[in-house]
Order: sequence, then C-alpha cells, then structure tokens
Amino acid sequence: MSELILTTYDWVPPPPRGFVRDLRVRWALEEAGLPYRVECTPFRDRGPEHFAHQPFGQVPWLTDGELSIFESGAILLHLAEKRPALMPTDRRGRAEVLEWVIAALNSLDLPSQPWALFRFMGLPGEAPEAKFVEDFLTARLDRLEAVLVGRAWLAAGRFTVADLLMADVLRQVDRFDGLAKHPACHAYVARMTARPAFLKAYDDQMAHFAAADAA
Amino acid sequence: MSELILTTYDWVPPPPRGFVRDLRVRWALEEAGLPYRVECTPFRDRGPEHFAHQPFGQVPWLTDGELSIFESGAILLHLAEKRPALMPTDRRGRAEVLEWVIAALNSLDLPSQPWALFRFMGLPGEAPEAKFVEDFLTARLDRLEAVLVGRAWLAAGRFTVADLLMADVLRQVDRFDGLAKHPACHAYVARMTARPAFLKAYDDQMAHFAAADAA
Repeated sequence: MSELILTTYDWVPPPPRGFVRDLRVRWALEEAGLPYRVECTPFRDRGPEHFAHQPFGQVPWLTDGELSIFESGAILLHLAEKRPALMPTDRRGRAEVLEWVIAALNSLDLPSQPWALFRFMGLPGEAPEAKFVEDFLTARLDRLEAVLVGRAWLAAGRFTVADLLMADVLRQVDRFDGLAKHPACHAYVARMTARPAFLKAYDDQMAHFAAADAA
Repeated sequence: MSELILTTYDWVPPPPRGFVRDLRVRWALEEAGLPYRVECTPFRDRGPEHFAHQPFGQVPWLTDGELSIFESGAILLHLAEKRPALMPTDRRGRAEVLEWVIAALNSLDLPSQPWALFRFMGLPGEAPEAKFVEDFLTARLDRLEAVLVGRAWLAAGRFTVADLLMADVLRQVDRFDGLAKHPACHAYVARMTARPAFLKAYDDQMAHFAAADAA
C-alpha cells in the first residue's frame, strides 16, 4: 500500500486550533488504523505549490501514492473505501454512509459554519441576516435531533465515517454552546468525541501547532 | 436493472421553480441515459412518510430498487457509480470527481446558498453579517475563477458530474448576477447549461410544476 501523507498548515493562531480540518482526517486514519505522516505547508505564504494541491488555498490535502486529494469530505470518502471500519462494503450500508456524509457537509455545515464564523468574529448582531442563519441552523438541528433521539448512529447501525464527520461539524456549534436546546445532538457529540481515535487526533493536532510555537 | 424513481414536491410556488434540487438529479439521469420516473410528495403537508425518506423534510430522494437515498449530492455520486458518462472508472478520475463534487457542495455552496437566500428574501442590508457572506463568496469565486480560466472541465479532463453539480451551485449565484466579476465562472455556467441534458431537465421540472398549477 502506498504511503499516506496528510498536509496541514505549519502553524495557525490559537483560536482555530483543535478545529483545523486536518483533525477529521487524522481521526479517520486513527479509526481505520492506517499509518500516515504529516507534512506542512505555510499558513502565512500560500504559494503556487499550495494552490496546485488545494485550489482554495486551504488545508488539508492527502497524498496517496500518485494521487493528491483535497476537500476533507472527499478525503474521508476516499479513506472509507479502504477500510470497513469507516464504511461497510454492502450496497445499503454504503448508500447510508454516503447520504449522511453529504448531509453533514451540506445540510448541516451550510448553516453551522456561517453561524460559528459569525461568533468567531464577534458577530452576530441584530441584523435579519444573523436571524436568518440562526433560524436556518435551528431548523436543521431540530430535524437532526429527531433522528438522534431514535438511534445511536447515523448510518448502517454502527459507527461510520458519517458519524465522524457529523460530530466534527456539530463540534463547531457546540463550541459556542449552540446545542443547548438539542440534547440528543449534544450527547451525540460528547459520545463521538470520547472515542480514543478522536482524542488521539485532537492531541496530535494540538501538539503539532504547539511545536510550531516553540520552534 | 432496478427502476429509478425520483421523488420531488407535487408543487412549489413560482420563485424556486427551475432551481428545486431534483433538477440536478434529472440532469444527471439525462446525461447518463438512465430511464426514470417521477413521483410526488406534498409540498404543504410533510408527514412521517416524507421524513422517513428525507429526514430534513426536503426533496429530492431517489429510489433505486430496495434503496432510498436522500441528499442530491449523494444521489449524484450514487448515479455516477453506474455510468462512466458521469464519472470515469479509473482511480485518478474518480478522486478528481469526488474532490470537486465535495468542493461544490461545501467550499462553494457554503457561501453561495446563504448569499442567494439573502437575495431571495429581499436581504441583504448593510449588516456586517451580509458583508461577511459577500466577502466569503467572493474569495471562493476568485479561486474558482483562477481554475476555470485555465481549463474547460473541473475533473478528469472532460464533462463529469462534478461540472454538473458545480454549474448547478453557481446557477443560483448567476441568477442574481453574482458572477459579473468572474467571467470564467459565468461562461462556464453558460456552457454547462447549454447542454441538451440540462435543457431537458429544466423543461421537465418547469412542466412538472406547471402541470400542478393546472390540476
């Protein structure tokens, strides 16, 4: 099997630490027991080499032999093909993982990321746009709550990469106490982030950026 | 092969017509030459049957034999597995399609959908939240513009479901003249939506909702 190389920033300021998107890939690699190493790209000067791998100038990207893949959601699905620990191999199980991975990346992240970014930046105020995003997120969480009240896992009756991704999306809401009215969502995040593979991934990301401070 | 059934609303008010998410699935089915039929779910009364198929109370969902799949992005990837017309079968081609499908659903749709919804609702005003979303979208379009200046297709050097989805995401921005400063993005949407399969899908959706008016 070809070597897996995860590229992330060399350094980020403290606030986003623990939430940089390489974390969800580290988490998946730990769950799957896939060995990998980490390489760095400059946070401050994003040059042609960076854009060649990640056209939006973000991180992470994954190198898998001759392939270089960007978008954390795509990387997760790529890794899921390698290991049943992340996605079952039967037709129904695969379809369930796929629909919930996309639900996390689009139906949930679509309101949750602006919602969290507004808070990150000291917004939101009283503007109708802020209320719109708030109501949008609440509507999606209400529906996810109804799902999570009834079951422990989103897809295939067991832990999959769909839970990993959904929990990582919801973490950014939980960080700003946005799940207080959705106890099943809150408990779900707590359950997923208690997994040893998450804790390892989290600690590894924090240590990676702390080492850059010391350097 | 099992019958494909695409479920959409029985009716929607005029403004979203031509933009309801079943359109991108119709488009993919036309590109792939896959026969399908359309079923309806009530727009006004969304009951347990609807939520059982689509937990967020939206459309579309696709029935493929014993499978029922929601999230238009997941449906597109599911269909792409069936037909090389939508996604090549080689490892590199698949990875490129996957990363650009996810880029459309997350990196682009994340700012573009709030941006378009603000306009749809008569917002945005002068609030910092409106400016944030505007700048967020511009940053992503700037990067996509740099990619599309250099090539005709996003993945695998030819039309794939990644172009279909990216064009459908950008259409909602173009509708409000949001691509005026990004001519390569604008030309890309024009080129993709001139495809016979898009025109067929668009006409079919418009006819579907017009028939509901007449009923």
